[in-house]
Amino acid sequence: MLDGGEPGTVRPGGRTARVREAVLRAAEDALTEQGFTGLDLADIARRAGVGKTTVYRRWGTVTGLVTDLLEDMAEQSAPRTETGSLLGDLTANARLVQRTLTDPRQGPLFKALIAAATGDAKTAAALHRFYDIRVREWAPCVRQAVDRGEAPEGTDAHEVVRAVSAPLYYHLLISGGRLDEATADRAAEVAVTAARAGVYVRGGGKLRRV
Amino acid sequence: MLDGGEPGTVRPGGRTARVREAVLRAAEDALTEQGFTGLDLADIARRAGVGKTTVYRRWGTVTGLVTDLLEDMAEQSAPRTETGSLLGDLTANARLVQRTLTDPRQGPLFKALIAAATGDAKTAAALHRFYDIRVREWAPCVRQAVDRGEAPEGTDAHEVVRAVSAPLYYHLLISGGRLDEATADRAAEVAVTAARAGVYVRGGGKLRRV
Repeated sequence: MLDGGEPGTVRPGGRTARVREAVLRAAEDALTEQGFTGLDLADIARRAGVGKTTVYRRWGTVTGLVTDLLEDMAEQSAPRTETGSLLGDLTANARLVQRTLTDPRQGPLFKALIAAATGDAKTAAALHRFYDIRVREWAPCVRQAVDRGEAPEGTDAHEVVRAVSAPLYYHLLISGGRLDEATADRAAEVAVTAARAGVYVRGGGKLRRV
Repeated sequence: MLDGGEPGTVRPGGRTARVREAVLRAAEDALTEQGFTGLDLADIARRAGVGKTTVYRRWGTVTGLVTDLLEDMAEQSAPRTETGSLLGDLTANARLVQRTLTDPRQGPLFKALIAAATGDAKTAAALHRFYDIRVREWAPCVRQAVDRGEAPEGTDAHEVVRAVSAPLYYHLLISGGRLDEATADRAAEVAVTAARAGVYVRGGGKLRRV
């Protein structure tokens, strides 16, 4: 039981941080195994080896806990790949997303988090923040491409990065379509082709409409 | 109570069809108002004015009912717009999707259906079928564009149509980004630019990778 923490083993952040860590990992496990529906605070407390009242007092509801998990995930950072070309960088990004979404643990976890966000405004805000941070981490590759002359000035770097992920999430959540490396590579190619053509220039509308 | 159907008012399909219609519309109402979580067969039976045992006997579970709703929605058909150009056609498609997802009733309904599909394989299969039918309805606009020489032979028409929707669903479910007409128009422009460049040619990979 983490509730009976021994003073000698206290890690940075102390008992409160250790309880949070244990409960968030237990919440991840539960979301991965059974999805958002049927998630139960008492079950998560049991998995975490933490007293039920601690969990109820701190997080209150399942959505409160899922929101905190998203805030914790937002703080984790993964370094961005730099290849020297926009296509190389965005292909690395697309393959990272594709590997995450097809991972037997991460895939179901992200599905469950997205499902949870559809039903609760605070969870949705935490989900948006999580993705916003990920997008900000990769946006410099588009700005560097603009500096290199690979894409026009005024290109909306955030929208380009989001565009790489969009078809992968669409296959995961909507179409059930294939989510392999070729799908990832095509997602990057589509975004790069459109970025080069100036479609992501802010206030755009580069193509003539009939 | 629909359960007490009067013989004189029987519409085509009879009482069974009328009960199904009432229950599916009640399920839509419940999903729209409260999302997938907390959906309750007894509440839906009450909304529909149908006996609880009828609903339990016929649909068994909430996911069974949601799956049937998706199968019913798949049978509805909306005519495709034909403008004479790929950009015109796909812009019409993107705006239709954008209007649907921002509609105060349809938006929450689709979110709830997608959330339901994350947790149940049969519901997911019904969701994929629903979208597959919608994609098939619009794919001819890409094949016509190939015939007109707007996009190369071998262009994967289904993937082009899915690509138009993907950023709109990404904003709805993942990023919380703006879902206005400009977003829709850009989604169509991206897909058209990439299609013209041959990125959607099957077995593709048109751009040189570093």
